[in-house]
Amino acid sequence: MTSITAKGEPAPKEYFTGSVWVNMVVKPDDHLNSTIAKVTFEPKARTNWHSHPYGQILIVTDGIGYYQEKGKPIQIINTGDVVKIPVNVEHWHGASHESAMTHIAIVPTDQTGTVWLTPVTDIDYNKE
Amino acid sequence: MTSITAKGEPAPKEYFTGSVWVNMVVKPDDHLNSTIAKVTFEPKARTNWHSHPYGQILIVTDGIGYYQEKGKPIQIINTGDVVKIPVNVEHWHGASHESAMTHIAIVPTDQTGTVWLTPVTDIDYNKE
Repeated sequence: MTSITAKGEPAPKEYFTGSVWVNMVVKPDDHLNSTIAKVTFEPKARTNWHSHPYGQILIVTDGIGYYQEKGKPIQIINTGDVVKIPVNVEHWHGASHESAMTHIAIVPTDQTGTVWLTPVTDIDYNKE
Repeated sequence: MTSITAKGEPAPKEYFTGSVWVNMVVKPDDHLNSTIAKVTFEPKARTNWHSHPYGQILIVTDGIGYYQEKGKPIQIINTGDVVKIPVNVEHWHGASHESAMTHIAIVPTDQTGTVWLTPVTDIDYNKE
């Protein structure tokens, strides 16, 4: 039986800013048409801008974070929130300035295909 | 923003035994290639036997429960466990005798297609 309890491994530096941990619990080679990970962001840490050809769902399990779609204001996300990220929409997510944030990230495909873009600058991050 | 905090609505009696609540947070008409629900089972409550043409993933978020695949022994599942249910495998899940159990259930398709079978008898349930 797999467990989602552990923080996992450091996230790849090229796609994230700050300290981020990933526990990948469902992988493409599980053949379950999905990729599922718990991701823990320390305060101020965040993903790069990116998009998903099959969309993505985030379930916030701890802390306070930010979510932003390109061209829209930053939204504050809290424990229990479910974020539905439409197909091919550029966005980023991460912790807030003062609080860590953990979410379960569900990508409903067993193909990777995430389109990684540029880091979220401090100027953009500090707009919240 | 959707929230996963609420217990939701009573589950349909024809597919479940005992007291079960479902909070459906991602629905087929969200067009996210997935159906995601929080399901809360009171002690002794459980699904019918069933299978999924695209598989299913359970993430146990509270309590102690049971999971059984046809022809195998009942497995005890605890908070933090991730259950990977292969395509078309007959199985059931639910609470244990003394403790409620809550899981997030992820079905990686926006087509329903769950194949519902017979209830889990008390004789089969009491084998654990």
